[in-house]
Amino acid sequence: MRSLQLHSDGRLKHFLSTEGLPRAVLEEILNTADAFMETSGRAIKSVPLLRGRTIAMLFFEGSTRTRSTFELAAKRLSADVLTLDVGLSSTSKGETLLDTLRNLEAMHCDMFVVRHADSGAAQFFASHAREGVAVLNAGDGRHAHPTQAMLDVYTIRRHKGPDFGRLRVVIVGDVLHSRVARSQIHALNILHVGELRVVAPATLLPEAVQALGVTVFDDLDEALVDADVVIGLRLQKERMRGAFLPSEGEYFRRYGLTTERLALAKPDCIVMHPGPMNRGVEIASDLADGPRSVILEQVGNGIAVRMAVMALCLGRPRASL
Amino acid sequence: MRSLQLHSDGRLKHFLSTEGLPRAVLEEILNTADAFMETSGRAIKSVPLLRGRTIAMLFFEGSTRTRSTFELAAKRLSADVLTLDVGLSSTSKGETLLDTLRNLEAMHCDMFVVRHADSGAAQFFASHAREGVAVLNAGDGRHAHPTQAMLDVYTIRRHKGPDFGRLRVVIVGDVLHSRVARSQIHALNILHVGELRVVAPATLLPEAVQALGVTVFDDLDEALVDADVVIGLRLQKERMRGAFLPSEGEYFRRYGLTTERLALAKPDCIVMHPGPMNRGVEIASDLADGPRSVILEQVGNGIAVRMAVMALCLGRPRASL
Amino acid sequence: MRSLQLHSDGRLKHFLSTEGLPRAVLEEILNTADAFMETSGRAIKSVPLLRGRTIAMLFFEGSTRTRSTFELAAKRLSADVLTLDVGLSSTSKGETLLDTLRNLEAMHCDMFVVRHADSGAAQFFASHAREGVAVLNAGDGRHAHPTQAMLDVYTIRRHKGPDFGRLRVVIVGDVLHSRVARSQIHALNILHVGELRVVAPATLLPEAVQALGVTVFDDLDEALVDADVVIGLRLQKERMRGAFLPSEGEYFRRYGLTTERLALAKPDCIVMHPGPMNRGVEIASDLADGPRSVILEQVGNGIAVRMAVMALCLGRPRASL
Repeated sequence: MRSLQLHSDGRLKHFLSTEGLPRAVLEEILNTADAFMETSGRAIKSVPLLRGRTIAMLFFEGSTRTRSTFELAAKRLSADVLTLDVGLSSTSKGETLLDTLRNLEAMHCDMFVVRHADSGAAQFFASHAREGVAVLNAGDGRHAHPTQAMLDVYTIRRHKGPDFGRLRVVIVGDVLHSRVARSQIHALNILHVGELRVVAPATLLPEAVQALGVTVFDDLDEALVDADVVIGLRLQKERMRGAFLPSEGEYFRRYGLTTERLALAKPDCIVMHPGPMNRGVEIASDLADGPRSVILEQVGNGIAVRMAVMALCLGRPRASL
Repeated sequence: MRSLQLHSDGRLKHFLSTEGLPRAVLEEILNTADAFMETSGRAIKSVPLLRGRTIAMLFFEGSTRTRSTFELAAKRLSADVLTLDVGLSSTSKGETLLDTLRNLEAMHCDMFVVRHADSGAAQFFASHAREGVAVLNAGDGRHAHPTQAMLDVYTIRRHKGPDFGRLRVVIVGDVLHSRVARSQIHALNILHVGELRVVAPATLLPEAVQALGVTVFDDLDEALVDADVVIGLRLQKERMRGAFLPSEGEYFRRYGLTTERLALAKPDCIVMHPGPMNRGVEIASDLADGPRSVILEQVGNGIAVRMAVMALCLGRPRASL
Repeated sequence: MRSLQLHSDGRLKHFLSTEGLPRAVLEEILNTADAFMETSGRAIKSVPLLRGRTIAMLFFEGSTRTRSTFELAAKRLSADVLTLDVGLSSTSKGETLLDTLRNLEAMHCDMFVVRHADSGAAQFFASHAREGVAVLNAGDGRHAHPTQAMLDVYTIRRHKGPDFGRLRVVIVGDVLHSRVARSQIHALNILHVGELRVVAPATLLPEAVQALGVTVFDDLDEALVDADVVIGLRLQKERMRGAFLPSEGEYFRRYGLTTERLALAKPDCIVMHPGPMNRGVEIASDLADGPRSVILEQVGNGIAVRMAVMALCLGRPRASL
C-alpha cells in the first residue's frame, strides 16, 4: 500500500490508508491542517490553492457528515466540486468502475474522493488512475477511513500536544466492523503512542488483533485507568449479521461510556466518538454533551484535516501548467 | 417569538415569522432589498458580503422555487452553500434534529435555511442554535413563511410606494392552510396597511381570523371594490382532509380571480399569487398572464429580499474574525 | 429551425440543432473552443466571462457525462449553476413546461440547458423564451444532440486539420435511434466533408437516409476502405422495441469495430464513440483503449466546446447592464 500512496520522493500521492505510512507524512498532514486553522478554531475561510482544479465526489455509500466536510474542504481551497450521482447499481463490475474513472479523468478531474461499501474500492481507483490524478479514501468497507483517523489524531494533538509517547489511548466498542478503528490504530502506532488499549466483547474483535499493536481488555473499568483519551466506536448495527450481542441495554451496562466510569481516567481525559452516536448505547448523553467531550470539535477539525490532505496531494503545480 | 428573533440591540438575529416584529425591522429588510436591486429590476450580480460564510439548506419538505431562490441569494452574496439531503425519515424525533443541528454547527455553518412540514421546526432550530448562528424559516407547516410574505410586501411597495396606509389589500382563498397568508397578514398590519380584506369559504378560514386584524368577506365581488392589491392563494389540495369544497369549478365560480371581476378594483390594481398556480381554479389564465399580474416579478424579487434577510442576519463581522 | 437559432445579425441565439446552420456559425464555435483550450489539451481553468449570469440545468432525462461537462463548462466561465430536480412527472403537459420556464426566467436565469426524452422539448423552450434568454439542447428524443456533434467535429479537426473536404468519415451503427448521428451528419455536411458513409443494418436506418447527404453501406469492410475517421454509435437498447437485431454476437460479427477491420482504413484513421460504450458489441475493447482511439479525448473536448457555445450565446453584454 505504501508504494501506491507515495511519490518516489516520499510525498503523498493518494491517501488510501494510514497503514504503513511514514511518521513524517502523518506529521506533515497534521502540520498542514494547523496552517489551515484560524486562531478561532475554525478552518480558514478561503485560499486559492486549488483554483482551477476539479474534485469529483464519488459517494457510492451515503454519508452526510463525511461528504459535507469533504465538500466544504474542497470549496475552501477554491476547487471546483463535481458531485456524481452514483447508484449502487453501476458498481458491481470492476470494468464499469474503470470506465467511470476514465471518463472523469477525461473531464480533467484532478482528484477523486471515493466512498464505497467494498473494501479496496479506493485502492482500485488509485492503482488505475492516470499520472497526476489523486484518490482519497472516504471509507471503504471494513478496511480503512484514513481522513477520519487523521482528524481524530489531530484532535488529540490539539488537546494533548505533539508528544504521543506520553499518552494512554483507549478505544472501546465494535472494532471488528470499524474501518475507523483500524485506521486509528495504525495512525496512533505510527505516531508512537505510549499505550493503546482496546476494549470490546470478544465477538466484536478481529482475530489476532494484538498483532496490530494494541493491548486487549475485556473489562472497560480496568482499561480506563489513567487514560488520557477515550474513543467510543459506533455500534455498526447495519453491518452485523447474527447475534453478536445480548442486547443494547446489556452492551451499555458493560461497554457504555459514562461520567461515573470516566472518574477512573485521568482528570483531563478527553472523550471522542466518530459519530453518529447511539446515545445510551455506546455513550451516556450527559458525557457526550459534557465538558470532557470533544466530539463536535472532531467534526470541525475534519474540515482542516481534509483541506490538508487535499492540498498535499494536489497543491503542487501541474507539469502541464 | 420576538425575543427569539432579535438581538438585544434590536437587530435581526433569526427570521422565523413576521409576527411581532417591529415595523423598523421590516422596513430595514425592504430597504436592504432595494440596495441589492439593479435599476434593471434584477438582483445584483455578486457582492462579497458573506464570503467565507457557509449556509446550509435544510429542506425537509420539497420546494423548487423557494430552494432555488434561497440558493441563488446565498451565491450572489458569495457564501458557500451546503445542500443537505434530508429525508423525512430522520426528522421524527427532536433529538435527531438537534444532533443534525449540532453537527452542522460543528462544520461552522453560519446559517440554516429550514423548510419543514411541521409548524415550529425553524423555531426549534433557532432556540437551540449556538451564539452567532442564524436560522431562516423557509416555510414551516401551516405556521409561517416570512420571506415569502416579505417579497410580497416588497413587490407591493415597488408598485405602490412606501405608504401602506393608503392601500386596500385583498387576500382571496385558502387562508386556513396557508402559512403564506398568515405571514402576509402580520407583515401588512405591522406596516399599517390601510385596509386588509380576507375572502374565503367559511370552511377555509381559521377560527377568530378577525383577531388577526382583517375584515372578512364571503363575497369576492364586494371585497374587490376599490382594491389596490389582490392576492390569490394556492388551494393547498395536499393539505386538505375531507370535503371542504364542493368542486374546483364551483370554487372558481365563487372565488376565482378573473379579468371581469378585477373591473371592480381600482384601475391600477395589481394581482399577486405566491405560486405554483392552479390555473382555472384560483385564477383565470388570461389574468395571470395579463398586464396587471406581477406574479413572475414576485419570484425575481424573492432573490433580493432573501439576500437582504441573509445579509442582515449575518452581514456583521464575527467577533472571532 | 435556423431562424429560431440565430439573431437577425446572424449570431447564435439558441443552440438546438446543427441542421440548417451556416458554416460560419459552426466554425465560430470551433474557433471559440480553440480559444478555451490550453496547450496541454485541457479546457482553460477559469475565465470571468459569464460572472453574474445564471445557468439552469434542466435534465428531464438522466445523463452523468453530458450533465457533468455542461456543469464544468458553466463553472469555468464563472456562471452560477442552478441544478433543478425535474422528475418526469411534471413534464407531460406543455403548459407545465411553460410555467417552469417562466418561473426560472423570473429568477433571472440567463440560459437553460435542456435534456428531454421528447423530440422538440428544447425547441419548445426556445420558442417561448423571453428576449435575452438562451436555450441549449443537451439531447432531445431521437432528434438532435448538437453539442455532442460539435465536440465530435472539433475532435476531428484537432486531428485532421480544418479542411474537412479532404476527409472520408464513416458512421457505424444504430443511426435510426441516434440523435447524435443526426446532428453529426448535418454538421459534417455543413462543413463540406469529403465523403460521409453510413453503415448499419437496414432495420436501424431511417427511411430516405440518403437525403441527409450520406452514402449507405451494408458491408462494414467496404465502408472502411481508406477512411480517415470512424465513428461507432451506441446501440440504444433502451430505445428499441421489437426484434431489430438477431443478437449482440451477430451484431458484433457484422458491425463491430475491431483492430483487424481498421487495417482497411487509412493508417492514421482515428476511432470515435460518443459513449457509453457497449464493449464487445459496437467496438472491441483493445481498439477502444488503443492508440487510434480518441474516445476519451472527445469527453474532454466536450468541456471546451460547451464553453464555446455558452459564451457565444451569452457572452455579449446584456442591454440591461
